[in-house]
Amino acid sequence: MQINYRKELEKIPVYVPGKPIDDVKRELGLSKVVKLASNENPLGFSPKARDAVNAILTEANLYPDGNATLLKNAIAGKFGIEPEMVLPTCGSDEMVDLIAKSFINCGDEVVMADITFPRYYITSQMMGAAIKIIPLKNLSYDIERFKKAITADTKIVWLCNPNNPTGTTFSEQELSDLLEMVPASTLVVYDEAYYEFASGEGYPKNSLAYLKKYKNMLVMRTLSKAYGLAGFRVGYTIGDPELLNVINRVRNPFNVTLLTQAAAIAAILDDEFLQKVVDNNDRGKEYIYKEFGRLGIEFAKTEANHIIFNAKKDSIQVFEALLRKGVIIRPIKGFSPETWLRVSIGTMEENRVFAEALEAVLAE
Amino acid sequence: MQINYRKELEKIPVYVPGKPIDDVKRELGLSKVVKLASNENPLGFSPKARDAVNAILTEANLYPDGNATLLKNAIAGKFGIEPEMVLPTCGSDEMVDLIAKSFINCGDEVVMADITFPRYYITSQMMGAAIKIIPLKNLSYDIERFKKAITADTKIVWLCNPNNPTGTTFSEQELSDLLEMVPASTLVVYDEAYYEFASGEGYPKNSLAYLKKYKNMLVMRTLSKAYGLAGFRVGYTIGDPELLNVINRVRNPFNVTLLTQAAAIAAILDDEFLQKVVDNNDRGKEYIYKEFGRLGIEFAKTEANHIIFNAKKDSIQVFEALLRKGVIIRPIKGFSPETWLRVSIGTMEENRVFAEALEAVLAE
Repeated sequence: MQINYRKELEKIPVYVPGKPIDDVKRELGLSKVVKLASNENPLGFSPKARDAVNAILTEANLYPDGNATLLKNAIAGKFGIEPEMVLPTCGSDEMVDLIAKSFINCGDEVVMADITFPRYYITSQMMGAAIKIIPLKNLSYDIERFKKAITADTKIVWLCNPNNPTGTTFSEQELSDLLEMVPASTLVVYDEAYYEFASGEGYPKNSLAYLKKYKNMLVMRTLSKAYGLAGFRVGYTIGDPELLNVINRVRNPFNVTLLTQAAAIAAILDDEFLQKVVDNNDRGKEYIYKEFGRLGIEFAKTEANHIIFNAKKDSIQVFEALLRKGVIIRPIKGFSPETWLRVSIGTMEENRVFAEALEAVLAE
Repeated sequence: MQINYRKELEKIPVYVPGKPIDDVKRELGLSKVVKLASNENPLGFSPKARDAVNAILTEANLYPDGNATLLKNAIAGKFGIEPEMVLPTCGSDEMVDLIAKSFINCGDEVVMADITFPRYYITSQMMGAAIKIIPLKNLSYDIERFKKAITADTKIVWLCNPNNPTGTTFSEQELSDLLEMVPASTLVVYDEAYYEFASGEGYPKNSLAYLKKYKNMLVMRTLSKAYGLAGFRVGYTIGDPELLNVINRVRNPFNVTLLTQAAAIAAILDDEFLQKVVDNNDRGKEYIYKEFGRLGIEFAKTEANHIIFNAKKDSIQVFEALLRKGVIIRPIKGFSPETWLRVSIGTMEENRVFAEALEAVLAE
């Protein structure tokens, strides 16, 4: 290839395509697979979203509403805010990309954790950021070190609370202290992808209240997890309309599909389904804690729909051994030694299959 | 706002949200609206795509296949190429953005027409390109001037054939001459969004054949137009796997939704539906030509599903007068004087409503 690509891309990992589950099944001769690898919703998604898709399906030859007016209204209504404070995107993935493209000049400093949602790193790298990495402390964000790392030159602070892949949180007090010390010229991206699952003491459940005071904060949420719309690709960001207007300049106008907008409107208003999901997650969490306890496995208490644990064996080998038993979870990079994995909380039946398979694998 | 956004964004137009059609109807007291503004498919989309969506709908709590393996296979099979030469995206919009992010360094030179698909300009601007603009000549790409503008320093040449919004084409000979003179270090983006509608003499119907010789060419197509999947958001690009691998580094991994992948696989294989669409378009084109002739209206012969014409009145005023009659088309910027508009070819009934409304408006 004689075309030079941007040198910033050199530090971005080369894309390795994953395999469809059907291919994995065929190759390993498995009839059934339990996938607890991607923090998907074991209960599916709201039947109201399914009905909404069916009702509008024949109109999908038309472009979606590029302003997502009705979806913005639904989200704004739910949280008692103005629709101008809401911007839906093709998952949080797209918003992270849009933020990087809007604000990061080559050489700009950004601050993020070492083990967190990987798109912060990739998109910051794409725009040529100078990335300050703050190691986790006891599997959690080390907010004191974040505060020390942030300077007048910091363009963006990337925060994920609860954190993916650890499921751990930092407290309302820590968030509040950090927001207070961050310069007004620094953007605080506060990613709450797992917000709906979090109920622990001290967790900032009313983070939107901070937006009134801190115009430099964006709160990112998704419908991929608790609402179960991962296949539809939709998230939303709440913040100052002036910030969102900047981001709108680089947004592709039809970023959220027509069917997805319809599904999201129905899903976000279905509190009954959401409650079932959270209840199932709470039960599953307690069950897995108990099983980890029984097996003597070190793990982090989670406020999300996934649990990180230390297999005390090479994580790739454990991953592959579980795969051969028809259970897919995710080995997590960045720990030393590399013996940690993340399991998504599934249905009780899936959790049991996982626990049994893990017990067998660790006894091998 | 105290956060500085990238200065490259200053030259990108501020986003102005459009209104949902229902709002337009209400505000203007219209019971029915004919929308011929966005080159959407008047026949809907393949019923096989609808069935495919229904068959997989309950699985949409799962993430889509990030590699779009089955969709790549379907496209590759249709055109007799390797799946590694195919990359599906969230419409052509996303691919244009990915190409810009992958290859344009600040200050890099790119070449494009003045009146063409606007995302080439916006995304090039976003990455800080030095943009050389080549004016249309007789409503068509002026390939001779393109060739003179291209130098060893040119990073990207953006080409749209048939061109949007003019519907005009350049010839196989012109394409072939241009590819031959372009340096191997220059990327030629060849956008065939309206390919399926084009049948005029001299049009390069077998553009994919050039990919064997020219590794610096990418062919972009979409399922939004002839296949009628605009609401689903899906396009695909064909080219050298090495180029696509670079682009994959900055692609969001789940860019095409689960339902969209299923719909696209069914749609791309439904040749019968495609033929109906092309036939309807050919009939509508002849009808609108005849009406323009009767009304003495200057227009460009089209190889796409839209026709550009000169109302000889201010295009915004004509647009607004048609809107009050319940017909939405699009005023086109960039002409001098600004008296040109673009109408999408609809069903015969929609075309008749448009022609009658236009006759009345021009007589006002």
